Amino acid sequence: MTIAAAIAELSTLLGARLVTSQADRTLHGQNETYYPLTPPDAVAYPETTAEVSQIMAICHAQDCPVTPYGAASSLEGQHLAVQGGVSLDMTRMNRVLAVNAEDLNAVVQPGITRIALNEELRATGLFFPVDPGANASMGGMAGTRASGTTAVRYGTMRENVLALEAVMADGTVIRTGTKARKSSTGYDLTHLLVGSEGTLGIITELTLRLQGIPEATAAATCRFASVQDAVNCVILTIQSGLPMARIELLDHMMVRGFNLYADAGLPEMPHLFLEFHGSKAGVAEQMASFAEIAEDFGATGWRTATRAEDRNALWKMRHSAHYASAALGKGKRLWPTDVCVPISQLATAVVQAQDDAVRLGLTSTIVGHVGDGNFHAGVSVNPEDADEMARAEAFTKALADTALRLGGTVSGEHGIGLGKQSLMNKEHGPAVAYMRAIKQAFDSKGILNPGKMLPPLAMAKAAE
Amino acid sequence: MTIAAAIAELSTLLGARLVTSQADRTLHGQNETYYPLTPPDAVAYPETTAEVSQIMAICHAQDCPVTPYGAASSLEGQHLAVQGGVSLDMTRMNRVLAVNAEDLNAVVQPGITRIALNEELRATGLFFPVDPGANASMGGMAGTRASGTTAVRYGTMRENVLALEAVMADGTVIRTGTKARKSSTGYDLTHLLVGSEGTLGIITELTLRLQGIPEATAAATCRFASVQDAVNCVILTIQSGLPMARIELLDHMMVRGFNLYADAGLPEMPHLFLEFHGSKAGVAEQMASFAEIAEDFGATGWRTATRAEDRNALWKMRHSAHYASAALGKGKRLWPTDVCVPISQLATAVVQAQDDAVRLGLTSTIVGHVGDGNFHAGVSVNPEDADEMARAEAFTKALADTALRLGGTVSGEHGIGLGKQSLMNKEHGPAVAYMRAIKQAFDSKGILNPGKMLPPLAMAKAAE
Repeated sequence: MTIAAAIAELSTLLGARLVTSQADRTLHGQNETYYPLTPPDAVAYPETTAEVSQIMAICHAQDCPVTPYGAASSLEGQHLAVQGGVSLDMTRMNRVLAVNAEDLNAVVQPGITRIALNEELRATGLFFPVDPGANASMGGMAGTRASGTTAVRYGTMRENVLALEAVMADGTVIRTGTKARKSSTGYDLTHLLVGSEGTLGIITELTLRLQGIPEATAAATCRFASVQDAVNCVILTIQSGLPMARIELLDHMMVRGFNLYADAGLPEMPHLFLEFHGSKAGVAEQMASFAEIAEDFGATGWRTATRAEDRNALWKMRHSAHYASAALGKGKRLWPTDVCVPISQLATAVVQAQDDAVRLGLTSTIVGHVGDGNFHAGVSVNPEDADEMARAEAFTKALADTALRLGGTVSGEHGIGLGKQSLMNKEHGPAVAYMRAIKQAFDSKGILNPGKMLPPLAMAKAAE
Repeated sequence: MTIAAAIAELSTLLGARLVTSQADRTLHGQNETYYPLTPPDAVAYPETTAEVSQIMAICHAQDCPVTPYGAASSLEGQHLAVQGGVSLDMTRMNRVLAVNAEDLNAVVQPGITRIALNEELRATGLFFPVDPGANASMGGMAGTRASGTTAVRYGTMRENVLALEAVMADGTVIRTGTKARKSSTGYDLTHLLVGSEGTLGIITELTLRLQGIPEATAAATCRFASVQDAVNCVILTIQSGLPMARIELLDHMMVRGFNLYADAGLPEMPHLFLEFHGSKAGVAEQMASFAEIAEDFGATGWRTATRAEDRNALWKMRHSAHYASAALGKGKRLWPTDVCVPISQLATAVVQAQDDAVRLGLTSTIVGHVGDGNFHAGVSVNPEDADEMARAEAFTKALADTALRLGGTVSGEHGIGLGKQSLMNKEHGPAVAYMRAIKQAFDSKGILNPGKMLPPLAMAKAAE
């Protein structure tokens, strides 16, 4: 029972779709952030659920680790095969299987990306709203319980996955959920798999909730004298029940990044980027209500964008935040992190993060989906500089501690992956033992994305 | 290790709050539907989480079944101690622990009821929207993943429980979730416990999402020549993206029930009962848009209610559907059942249910939260009449089969409890084995609400 034996059997099963070339292994071992190159032993390219089931049966028999791979846009190394074995590349399973326009849902394979899905949906007048910025795959987005800019209005993957098909550790294929909008039957395995980072099963099909493309859409930006003013404006907006479609905070460092990376030409002050969805009258009413709140906090420099191309330019810039943050640290890598706090604690958390970065001598941006209380810090690091890496780690830990102290969570959307395992016990305490019990019950051999999310027992003991 | 030994220990722990009187046991063995009286061996009245933990530790050591008890409004016998042991009456843990108005959430104990919670919230301008009709307890509503009339707008308990505290089988206290609106850390134990019918842990605290009381609210009713017209109006309304707060279907039999029970004086035709929430202008816009759709399907007999007392009278009548259905069968009990289907299949499902009732010679109402594709049938039965009970069971099974055939679920909100275990394998197939694995991992002694939800293995085998 070895990885080599599994690869030999998989090669027989998949032929040329089981690849062990250096180039392909290297590609699948890369990541967008600071984790070192981690090539798997082989890459498998299944084309059907039945093939995924056969692959899992072989790897189960041979005790061979399997790490699912989508768009590789995860930010905590979730797709890296840290214990070797097979990188299960789902990108060939990228079809839309059905669009049920009448029921506002679509059935898709996990390899389809967010942008490709919305391209295919365009003619139907419907769209899939969850937008983490990166052109992530649906399987990966479900795996990390992704959210992003529109979650404040439409929810995260948690609210937008109705049902799943998944292949379990031994190759068993299960279906969770139905096409009905709700159900009270049985344990909620859909929501157990969403956010499980590929450690409980391989998602092979998703039924997703869709939304009607709104009759009217408008975007706007404005700026504030201080980050507190900007955040307090957000807090009051959410508390007022305004159905914001997007409400994004950029701190002055993030704006500097956009100026460098995208020649944005914005004053280096805290900004809010906004989007409103609704009927024409509804959007006008929302914009007026928001402007009234924002002006109380001294908002200036209003720009609005109602034409699609202007809005797209705005959000394209916003979506380049990762690269714009990286641009601040010439030649460095980016250590991105995120937390989510109750919205009443948002100003405290953001200011604390800014102060921590200064105190630790780090260059960091802050940008966030602040309507949810969720924000990112992007620290420029040189992975060769042990001292800087240690300070970046201290920053991340301090930010996580801040979030927990304020009643929040150590990640709103990036997940745990490799980077935040030491925080699991801090956040979840005795509940971690029940997560371990589920992992053991579903994957007793520990072959599904091993080394992710659940901390090694030694680490858990040390943290106690 | 016996139930008697557990009761003796619990008596020492709780004193007068461990009750074995015939009267109290009988009270806790009753139910709203057709299940026979099922008294527990004893009733425990804990007042703190620490006491619940001690109770579970004792019952775990003694292998004594524990069945949580809230408002006893469950419709599939979830609160009945079918294997004896202790009925864990949570009604003394009924406090609001915190209202975080700024964060739109509240922390409550499980014994508080829906109406009591909203009374306490009134001064804050916030409300808890989930409304299953019955004045259920929050713990019970989470346990059965309840929803009701407003789920179409605000979601079910699945969407409205942010975090939980729970006591597990051996007395371990865990916390799941945080006060942040979203998180990507760890397995989603909150959603695993929501809907688990008390079989995985005892909920001792809930953090609930709240909503701002809308600036304007209006209610309306109208009627249609056929149930198809009414349902097709609902389908188009939902597909148009109108943010309905309530959209309820009553078939002609249900209207007859209201006329008998509440002297409603309504023509015995299919009706829709509606509610609109929003700004004043928004509500007016929504009502006009709905009226335009409804008139295309021949809606007549419009009545509107904008004053609070008129709206309350309307929804009080709607909430009496259980008793109004019972009124149709003089001296009989009610066998209520529910299913949920994709909305495009709603007309097919409703008409099939009506036809099945006629075919089987049964008196049944249909009333439902049709915006979700969810509806109830209420069959009048005499539990002494074996033939009628067999026909009612055949009706329930046929309705469940219809729902599954149309891509739906065998229960949208009543749950599985005692009554629908034989349908678990039909709906979930191989996934049931993974539910069993979770149950085994969390409660290896099987003391938490035994005999509920998961079918006995013999039944599961027979169903294959």
